[in-house]
Amino acid sequence: MSYHQSFTSLNHNYVASFDKGHLPLPPSKHVAVVTCMDARVEPASQLGINLGEAHVIRNAGGRAKEALRSIVISQRLLGTREVAVFHHTDCGMLTFNNEDIRKQIKSEESGKAEVASLVDHIDFLPFPDLEQSVKDDVEFLKENPLLLEGTVITGWTYDVKTGKVKQIA
Amino acid sequence: MSYHQSFTSLNHNYVASFDKGHLPLPPSKHVAVVTCMDARVEPASQLGINLGEAHVIRNAGGRAKEALRSIVISQRLLGTREVAVFHHTDCGMLTFNNEDIRKQIKSEESGKAEVASLVDHIDFLPFPDLEQSVKDDVEFLKENPLLLEGTVITGWTYDVKTGKVKQIA
Repeated sequence: MSYHQSFTSLNHNYVASFDKGHLPLPPSKHVAVVTCMDARVEPASQLGINLGEAHVIRNAGGRAKEALRSIVISQRLLGTREVAVFHHTDCGMLTFNNEDIRKQIKSEESGKAEVASLVDHIDFLPFPDLEQSVKDDVEFLKENPLLLEGTVITGWTYDVKTGKVKQIA
Repeated sequence: MSYHQSFTSLNHNYVASFDKGHLPLPPSKHVAVVTCMDARVEPASQLGINLGEAHVIRNAGGRAKEALRSIVISQRLLGTREVAVFHHTDCGMLTFNNEDIRKQIKSEESGKAEVASLVDHIDFLPFPDLEQSVKDDVEFLKENPLLLEGTVITGWTYDVKTGKVKQIA
């Protein structure tokens, strides 16, 4: 059985007690959180975010560069004025570099010239140092001319072993 | 006060009852969910996803094209074999097109030539039709040679007024 078949029944329980249909589109706390797709990361409970309060942008690593399109939409169309970037301990992005993953995929799809060309053009955005990667992403956003002037930009780590967050930028 | 100042105290409550420090890096249900950054979307409770079970990728609109890098990492390095794409009702992406947002930003940052050039090179990935956008994203992934053969790819809508999900592809 594919896992998606459980979504409908699990959602049924949620719908039964759902009373948040009135919430407006813009986030009430005017904040956008950028974090990793990691299965052990769950921003709502870990950061105490209630439904309707914050934009949550997630990708492999929680990289700000890839989140830029979303952040611009979040600020310009939906009124957010803060960005908080979270990366976490034991992140998959710490375990490889671009050459590693390109080589692996080319080997797994050997003979497919299209795949080889495609992966050579993707920057997978891995990083070798957790705290430095947070500082780099905060710096990237602070220097980016597409962000609104005066945006409050902070950087954090989340520890998957303890559940703790720590502000580092 | 900036909102991020509340993260530490809200996280403190989470840490006090945290008992999931043992979870492994790869998602136990081998599934990656792609959904929107919208503040009314909260995949863990809405889809019944427990900590450690699924990758969750979120961006403005829940667009598969921008999620591709993360999906490739999810599959090749962390063993997921299913992708479920969710877009939702009342999405901000239904309310504008590329020309609208480019014009707005250029007007807000008038005189900054660098900004004008940057926004002209961003595809903000808006869409005019909710269900069609889900079908388009599922098709994009099904045809993409970087996804593993045999990947189960499904497409869904989430209704922000009722809390209900509906499979449409």
